[in-house]
Amino acid sequence: MIPAQLICKKRDGGELSADEIRAFIAGVTDGTLRDYQIAAMLMAIFFRGLSGAELATWADAMTRSGDVLDLSSIPRAKVDKHSTGGVGDKISIPLAPAVAACGVAVPMVSGRGLGHTGGTLDKLESIPGFSVNLSIERFIEQTGRLGTCLIGQTERIAPADKSLYALRDVTGTVESVPLIASSIMSKKLAEGIDGLVLDCKVGRGAFMKTVDRAKELCAAIAQIGHAAGKRVTCVLTAMDEPIGRTIGNALEIRESIEVLRGGGPADTRELTCVLGGEMLVLGGVAPDAAAGAARIAEVLANGAALEVFRQVVAAQGGNPEVCDSPGRVLPKAAHRQELCLPPGTITAIDSEKLGLAALLLGAGRVRKEDVIDPAAGLVVDAYVGEVIGKDAPPSVLLHHNLPEGDARVTNARALILEAFFLSPDAPAAPPAKTRILEVLR
Amino acid sequence: MIPAQLICKKRDGGELSADEIRAFIAGVTDGTLRDYQIAAMLMAIFFRGLSGAELATWADAMTRSGDVLDLSSIPRAKVDKHSTGGVGDKISIPLAPAVAACGVAVPMVSGRGLGHTGGTLDKLESIPGFSVNLSIERFIEQTGRLGTCLIGQTERIAPADKSLYALRDVTGTVESVPLIASSIMSKKLAEGIDGLVLDCKVGRGAFMKTVDRAKELCAAIAQIGHAAGKRVTCVLTAMDEPIGRTIGNALEIRESIEVLRGGGPADTRELTCVLGGEMLVLGGVAPDAAAGAARIAEVLANGAALEVFRQVVAAQGGNPEVCDSPGRVLPKAAHRQELCLPPGTITAIDSEKLGLAALLLGAGRVRKEDVIDPAAGLVVDAYVGEVIGKDAPPSVLLHHNLPEGDARVTNARALILEAFFLSPDAPAAPPAKTRILEVLR
Repeated sequence: MIPAQLICKKRDGGELSADEIRAFIAGVTDGTLRDYQIAAMLMAIFFRGLSGAELATWADAMTRSGDVLDLSSIPRAKVDKHSTGGVGDKISIPLAPAVAACGVAVPMVSGRGLGHTGGTLDKLESIPGFSVNLSIERFIEQTGRLGTCLIGQTERIAPADKSLYALRDVTGTVESVPLIASSIMSKKLAEGIDGLVLDCKVGRGAFMKTVDRAKELCAAIAQIGHAAGKRVTCVLTAMDEPIGRTIGNALEIRESIEVLRGGGPADTRELTCVLGGEMLVLGGVAPDAAAGAARIAEVLANGAALEVFRQVVAAQGGNPEVCDSPGRVLPKAAHRQELCLPPGTITAIDSEKLGLAALLLGAGRVRKEDVIDPAAGLVVDAYVGEVIGKDAPPSVLLHHNLPEGDARVTNARALILEAFFLSPDAPAAPPAKTRILEVLR
Repeated sequence: MIPAQLICKKRDGGELSADEIRAFIAGVTDGTLRDYQIAAMLMAIFFRGLSGAELATWADAMTRSGDVLDLSSIPRAKVDKHSTGGVGDKISIPLAPAVAACGVAVPMVSGRGLGHTGGTLDKLESIPGFSVNLSIERFIEQTGRLGTCLIGQTERIAPADKSLYALRDVTGTVESVPLIASSIMSKKLAEGIDGLVLDCKVGRGAFMKTVDRAKELCAAIAQIGHAAGKRVTCVLTAMDEPIGRTIGNALEIRESIEVLRGGGPADTRELTCVLGGEMLVLGGVAPDAAAGAARIAEVLANGAALEVFRQVVAAQGGNPEVCDSPGRVLPKAAHRQELCLPPGTITAIDSEKLGLAALLLGAGRVRKEDVIDPAAGLVVDAYVGEVIGKDAPPSVLLHHNLPEGDARVTNARALILEAFFLSPDAPAAPPAKTRILEVLR
């Protein structure tokens, strides 16, 4: 392989052969390709895209750049969910135990939060003692025994993706559908799953701003999955408001436990039931999505999902009492400050700004090495269509451990105020009934 | 400057501000920008291009990345010529002394050959003793005193171009008009010239294969020149056959001296007169191109141009007797082998293959560090339209110092045979009267 020739071929709209793609990804993995050549190829792919055949090979080569887990010892169907990332997206936490309680295994390898979106691993770690760093052997054993296990990505899973992802971030090549799709799928296919449900967020505060763009990503994800012999369902969900009422790690765990106890905000419950229902269909234990969703609602209501979560927390070193007394077990912030919105009707919410406000309070990271404050975050009691009257109760509660007069608090308050678009004369409207925009099976 | 943001801006078709471009080129020059970020930006520019304003600033920032020569001590107008590179292109060698003899100074910073095209520096160095490594101070002094000086690029001239050029070569970003134009102009503007004549080669064996593509490059070159307050004339010239009869360093010096003595092949004389005529117009010593060309023909005929060349050779350490007895002074190859073409009419010549054949014999370099044999090369006595009869005299003479049975000779002979397209029934035609396709003033 002469790298510059491959780059020129893609640059000029040619189709790379399977051998060329495998040689390129091998060069990424073993470090023989130079970063500047990888960067030039990524930018050429940004402009030229990848054909269906190229995409399947590219993702497969990335998957095989590391270990592909062998879950054949687990007799159940193995189905995972991936979300493209939203503010307040804690769905994995009630979802994995609920699906497991219905008989489908969920081998879940998750990521950490960066920027305005949080990560499932960070949320779980706010439970005292909870460890996401298990060996692959323990991961497989626990998934087999309890039906689910939630860990972080190891060095052995899709190492080519680690190199490419780090480079894309600094070379302006993040927003490429084939590169996003192959990055997601290489990690998921390496988990050894049979099927995947993609929760593709659309709208303000989501990576995909339009339904068209989201469908492009879903098509690429499905193409890669089908080429690998996996079942894939994509659910487009609205990301025009934060998910649930909480943003921040311990706060989101508390809200997740409310869902696992049969309560919680309507949108959070709905997402859990719909995504879980699709997973049950892929796993072959529900005849259709409606039956699947009903089954998930049942295990949330009857305590079966909470029981799986309790065992998972205990198995991964956490304090299982969090299930019964989250307020006592989870870390609490020293300060809780109220924020009132000015009068008017809320016409839109910029979730990204709320995510950034939570980050400023300590709930997230600007850089990978930043330390998170598990107790920090926001509780948001305001929805699009709500009328804020004069002397209304506070709409947002800020939780933090920052010292008196810290500029980050002032900046977070300003961001929150900017996040709400208020109109003096817009009509009132009830909260949106559903976040589900479309299901692509 | 956040590099990834600049890359994204260009990637998405935005216009970079002057400050952003200057910060980027500063980062290229001082090494604070990473190669992979530069590579991503180059590929984004390949796809998105540069606007007129961006192009002017980009080239200006590259020019100012190093020293810009101050030739204000030289009272004459300063005009240079640049060729985009052709096989057998020795025009600079008769041109610079001829223009100088007419009263316009030619401060010429040239390059070395790489691949199938030769470099003026390598040709000059085939004159025993000739040095192209003079200090800037000597360069300015000699240009003032003799009217011309021919040297190689120093570390101090446009260092940003060195970094970008090396990276473009290995990242598939060579063939971009704004990047080519700014690379050429950054070096030329750093010479401190008042005007430039661009000889833009078009056709088989040239970098620009079509007139349209060549005009694009000329427009970019003119735009950069005009923004810098310089006069620019672009001459499109046909590159469908090698220039003159010789390819190879000492062979081309010998042919150049023939031109300086009022003889030489018609095409080589024509190019010298036309390009020189345009330079005299830019330098303000000829009222129009025709008068300028006539003036150049005059100094070639009356020995004034040869006299300047003699003084330049002596001043730069070479043996000035080369002007009178080139056959005695220049290195000669140990072997001269004849090559006969099969019968037919020559319908086309692939100059690039002839350049590569000369390279195989030792006249050029595959890698920068390769050593050149100054005596090696080809003498080509065949033109498009010529009828090769049975038992015709040899069309090509191979000059080389390779051992008996060396595969490079066999390969060179095969390349030469491939370079000539022969038809049994095409009509005979005289050699093309002119290589000048169009002049863009």
